[in-house]
Amino acid sequence: MKQPHIQCTKDDISKMVILPGDPARVDRVAKHLDEYEEIAYNREFKTIKGKYKGIDVTVTSTGIGGASACIALEELVACGAEYFIRIGSLGAYQEEIKIGDLIIAEGAVREDGASKMYIGENYPAVANSEVLEVLKKKAKELEYAHYTGLVRSHDSFYIDNEDDVVRYWNKKGLLGADMETATVMTLGRLRNVKVGSILNNVVVYESDVRDGINDYVDNGKMAEEGERREIILALEALCELSKK
Amino acid sequence: MKQPHIQCTKDDISKMVILPGDPARVDRVAKHLDEYEEIAYNREFKTIKGKYKGIDVTVTSTGIGGASACIALEELVACGAEYFIRIGSLGAYQEEIKIGDLIIAEGAVREDGASKMYIGENYPAVANSEVLEVLKKKAKELEYAHYTGLVRSHDSFYIDNEDDVVRYWNKKGLLGADMETATVMTLGRLRNVKVGSILNNVVVYESDVRDGINDYVDNGKMAEEGERREIILALEALCELSKK
Amino acid sequence: MKQPHIQCTKDDISKMVILPGDPARVDRVAKHLDEYEEIAYNREFKTIKGKYKGIDVTVTSTGIGGASACIALEELVACGAEYFIRIGSLGAYQEEIKIGDLIIAEGAVREDGASKMYIGENYPAVANSEVLEVLKKKAKELEYAHYTGLVRSHDSFYIDNEDDVVRYWNKKGLLGADMETATVMTLGRLRNVKVGSILNNVVVYESDVRDGINDYVDNGKMAEEGERREIILALEALCELSKK
Amino acid sequence: MKQPHIQCTKDDISKMVILPGDPARVDRVAKHLDEYEEIAYNREFKTIKGKYKGIDVTVTSTGIGGASACIALEELVACGAEYFIRIGSLGAYQEEIKIGDLIIAEGAVREDGASKMYIGENYPAVANSEVLEVLKKKAKELEYAHYTGLVRSHDSFYIDNEDDVVRYWNKKGLLGADMETATVMTLGRLRNVKVGSILNNVVVYESDVRDGINDYVDNGKMAEEGERREIILALEALCELSKK
Amino acid sequence: MKQPHIQCTKDDISKMVILPGDPARVDRVAKHLDEYEEIAYNREFKTIKGKYKGIDVTVTSTGIGGASACIALEELVACGAEYFIRIGSLGAYQEEIKIGDLIIAEGAVREDGASKMYIGENYPAVANSEVLEVLKKKAKELEYAHYTGLVRSHDSFYIDNEDDVVRYWNKKGLLGADMETATVMTLGRLRNVKVGSILNNVVVYESDVRDGINDYVDNGKMAEEGERREIILALEALCELSKK
Amino acid sequence: MKQPHIQCTKDDISKMVILPGDPARVDRVAKHLDEYEEIAYNREFKTIKGKYKGIDVTVTSTGIGGASACIALEELVACGAEYFIRIGSLGAYQEEIKIGDLIIAEGAVREDGASKMYIGENYPAVANSEVLEVLKKKAKELEYAHYTGLVRSHDSFYIDNEDDVVRYWNKKGLLGADMETATVMTLGRLRNVKVGSILNNVVVYESDVRDGINDYVDNGKMAEEGERREIILALEALCELSKK
Repeated sequence: MKQPHIQCTKDDISKMVILPGDPARVDRVAKHLDEYEEIAYNREFKTIKGKYKGIDVTVTSTGIGGASACIALEELVACGAEYFIRIGSLGAYQEEIKIGDLIIAEGAVREDGASKMYIGENYPAVANSEVLEVLKKKAKELEYAHYTGLVRSHDSFYIDNEDDVVRYWNKKGLLGADMETATVMTLGRLRNVKVGSILNNVVVYESDVRDGINDYVDNGKMAEEGERREIILALEALCELSKK
Repeated sequence: MKQPHIQCTKDDISKMVILPGDPARVDRVAKHLDEYEEIAYNREFKTIKGKYKGIDVTVTSTGIGGASACIALEELVACGAEYFIRIGSLGAYQEEIKIGDLIIAEGAVREDGASKMYIGENYPAVANSEVLEVLKKKAKELEYAHYTGLVRSHDSFYIDNEDDVVRYWNKKGLLGADMETATVMTLGRLRNVKVGSILNNVVVYESDVRDGINDYVDNGKMAEEGERREIILALEALCELSKK
Repeated sequence: MKQPHIQCTKDDISKMVILPGDPARVDRVAKHLDEYEEIAYNREFKTIKGKYKGIDVTVTSTGIGGASACIALEELVACGAEYFIRIGSLGAYQEEIKIGDLIIAEGAVREDGASKMYIGENYPAVANSEVLEVLKKKAKELEYAHYTGLVRSHDSFYIDNEDDVVRYWNKKGLLGADMETATVMTLGRLRNVKVGSILNNVVVYESDVRDGINDYVDNGKMAEEGERREIILALEALCELSKK
Repeated sequence: MKQPHIQCTKDDISKMVILPGDPARVDRVAKHLDEYEEIAYNREFKTIKGKYKGIDVTVTSTGIGGASACIALEELVACGAEYFIRIGSLGAYQEEIKIGDLIIAEGAVREDGASKMYIGENYPAVANSEVLEVLKKKAKELEYAHYTGLVRSHDSFYIDNEDDVVRYWNKKGLLGADMETATVMTLGRLRNVKVGSILNNVVVYESDVRDGINDYVDNGKMAEEGERREIILALEALCELSKK
Repeated sequence: MKQPHIQCTKDDISKMVILPGDPARVDRVAKHLDEYEEIAYNREFKTIKGKYKGIDVTVTSTGIGGASACIALEELVACGAEYFIRIGSLGAYQEEIKIGDLIIAEGAVREDGASKMYIGENYPAVANSEVLEVLKKKAKELEYAHYTGLVRSHDSFYIDNEDDVVRYWNKKGLLGADMETATVMTLGRLRNVKVGSILNNVVVYESDVRDGINDYVDNGKMAEEGERREIILALEALCELSKK
Repeated sequence: MKQPHIQCTKDDISKMVILPGDPARVDRVAKHLDEYEEIAYNREFKTIKGKYKGIDVTVTSTGIGGASACIALEELVACGAEYFIRIGSLGAYQEEIKIGDLIIAEGAVREDGASKMYIGENYPAVANSEVLEVLKKKAKELEYAHYTGLVRSHDSFYIDNEDDVVRYWNKKGLLGADMETATVMTLGRLRNVKVGSILNNVVVYESDVRDGINDYVDNGKMAEEGERREIILALEALCELSKK
């Protein structure tokens, strides 16, 4: 049976999955694979299946936000996927984090709506420690500038008191924000699969969000390099994990 | 300046906007326009601009979930849009609602995360009454089978206690559920724009959600016809509203 | 069987009901009826039954606050009432709203305790759209100065941070506040009856609440005229609704 | 200055106040006074001022529910009142409590909306211990059957799951429910005045609420006697308190 | 059977119990007893049993915080204890309260986590009125400087916004804060036992908490005298209560 | 300056700290040190300082519950401590976990009151990944039976619906429960120190809690061995961490 949204069957999905948000990033992951084929592209869910250094890898875009990320994750789990590495973008909450620096999330503040539909807010959004370890080890081996810590996943950054929110979390030590990490970490744990998350910083602290994202869309060199790095890091980590 | 996600400028966006969730439905709306051009397609946000019976209409897909719908709405408002009609799919919560029946939402239960980032839960997600009136009037004129009442917008239907949730709301009289109506109604009001929502029933009450959506994806005739109707209804309503 | 609080039976109550808060306003509605009789007056619940342009109308006062309004509504529904129009007073939250201007509520922020006993806060307090349409149409025909939008219904305006609360909601675009609209709209929907609400502005924005209400009690001309208008508007609307 | 709702001035209000809910009960208190005059009767707020065994006593009805009780209390405090004894009706939550038995509340579960507008729910609704002591002492001297413990004050008993709610609180040991005790105890403390509450049981545990209240309205002998006793107890307690 | 934490059996525990927080204070209570023996000392729970003016008294330390206080209370109730008087320390929230002044709590704001595990926050933490009355009467007879009113029980005073919290509660009229009163009052009522609380002020309002507690640990004379007084007051009250 | 509760100064505290709950366990840790001295023992806080394989180690008991654990952690951080490993007891929520098996917590459900005083519930209680990695690695090297996953930290297990709670979390995949892990993980992160937690299972799933803890107090062999192992694991991990 084809899953209703991702339009894939068990045969289409490998044990190892990469989860970008943007369907276009699926294609940019494809460039790093030894071979691949497109499986389906329905709504914001684009899926390809390919090979990287001998292992099978699926790449499925989740779209923006926890609601669509949940759908992708649930349907991928239903197809037998076991390891998930999200590769996304982050707006930094600390001054020292530069564009293109990678954030490997240990956990996330759950300000998304989707994870709360599954379980109370006091349940922690935590990276799977096996995946987390491999991500940290590989990032070090690859000599990629990176930070490890907590992020915040929310459902809208165009809120009226955005500045206050960002300053609050800056003081509490968060590394930055995205919109899906908390959802996939929470849901992954409830579904007994292993989830990690790598985020590429595309907005420096206290710059304007719209400007930052625009720069990114305009393909600033550093953000592009950050994305290239998070792709390679995810692929290398899945290789290592598949050997265990 | 181009908006970062929808990749449009003020020149690209008209006062009247239709908001499907699915980028593919943007193309299906296009077929009903007298003329149109594609403006942008970035992530889940596909935008076309066209003409319908002499008025300018923009169609932008929101993607699934309140988080991406918020982004679309905020950026469209920043480009000068004033009237929004969401056209989406619904899973029915009452037995008598058949596939392809239209639901014109008076308001929505706010079980989405995105609207809560803007304002407390006790703020009502209510359709703009001017838009609502015209939708009801036009649906009657077009002789489309339809219901008017409340729906529920949530961030995930793959939750473990889904059946209990659905039965609870059936008893409370809700017509059905989607994932974006509450978000766009709440945010629209805060941004002082006018929002209505038409939903096409694609899952009958107490059937299995995955089956239902699959049928829809497989293009069951009635669901297809329902979509055609919600498109025409939205277009006709915008025409009428533009005359005021 | 007589209902315990309103002390009425099914024979006493018509399909069409007007709901003032103040028992004394019941008598002022009576003056506009072609004929009427007093049915009961127990606690804050005064009920009369009469005729207006050929239709049967019941008028029952709810007392102040959602708790007593709930009792009135529940017992009236048990007696077979179907359409309810609240006529109440409002303190304005926007500068342009003058004393005696009418507010036709599309919905209400649920800051009352009573509606929360029935259903979660994210369920919207929304006017019935059939009633709302007729109220808007009739207000226009009668050429009464009026606004359509959201109000806030709360359980106390003598709170210590009242000024902050009012300023917050002014910025969010609310038209003003009363104490019963959210309750009767929420409960009405759950009981499958049709509820609308007209509010007469008796306190201008940023004036002192006690002064404002005193002026009103002292029968300022404009507030009196506003009340006269909301009574006529309610009666005319019920006439129109009874024809459908 | 006259208070806007109770329509009284400082001269009208004594230090000692009795707070029935029902305006008609104000008159039944009057019968026990040595002399009295009616001060005002606006909406549900009826006020008389009189003498009992040499001390000045004011009696003001609060109407049903915390919202109107708050208004009465705030305006009475503004007029200089210091001691308040609520005399109300209760539905019993324990089998052994008979019709007409008195409940002297030590505190109350805050299920009203009004007190929550003033302060967080974890702030306790507690009787003033000076008033409580005198009430207990006098009830004993008068040899009135009575219970001391906690009650619950809520904003609606016509909710769909009323039976579950009642059974839950029965197990937790509550004596019964009214609609105003929690509000006046919470607000009284915040306004630095002294509040106690006597409740007359008018509905036995697990009987039907509508029947129970009807019996009461039909003036069942025991309920009437209970009311007579709560009036005398309140008056005697205020006498004792005025001597301190 | 020995209770798992306090390591006592029914034979070890009398009807009357004193609950200090600090195990060392158990020994300081012992000095005021006519005779005593140590029963158990496991973790923070030290228990002695003795005689005071002819009555049997148990003294058990609860440790710091509601979590351990709950354990002590639950296990003592399981052993048959009926009356509990907590003797603890308080940081004052009002300027006029001096070091060594006693606070007799009528109730407490429930900012502890433990009581919330048992019952919703709107259930009041109230002193048993029988115990409270005797404490007030005895404090007066002993001519100890004391205050009666509400306190706040919380789970940490090293929070970042402590100053704001303290100032907020100062304005709301709280007498001060401890960490266990709300827990033992709430749980005691649910378990149908009688609980009172005496607190000895060891930190004046707006002094630094760490300094204050240090002074106390350094055995400032007034704080020591305050502790002596709360011990005697508790013992005298239990004597009086045992006569009833 | 001496910290008020733990009664230690900066000189007394090393960078590496072990946090048992029970003061008696401090002494049992001491047996594994090459040398040590007792620093202070005030209330439930017992502190020793010693050497293990050449590194300085402090051991401080936290007492039971988040409230006292917070105090210990805050004061230890004020004295310069940087790495913390909690060694505690757990009641298992999964059948396969045997007495004496170790649980290395990746994170914890925050059902404690103390951590909520610092930060919202949606902030995750997550182990520091550096500490977590070393704990997992060392447990493997030492060949100790162990599990890695989430636990729940709460403020009372004597609640009335304990069985329901346990069964709920069993289904959600939690490994078991303690009372301090969530608190120290949350607070540690906010204070920028590194926290891990090892728990020794002392109660098998679906056995009676009181029996289980009694067996433990009676020093069942396996539970004793489990405690020995968590001590050695903590010491070995701190050694490894100090080399970095």
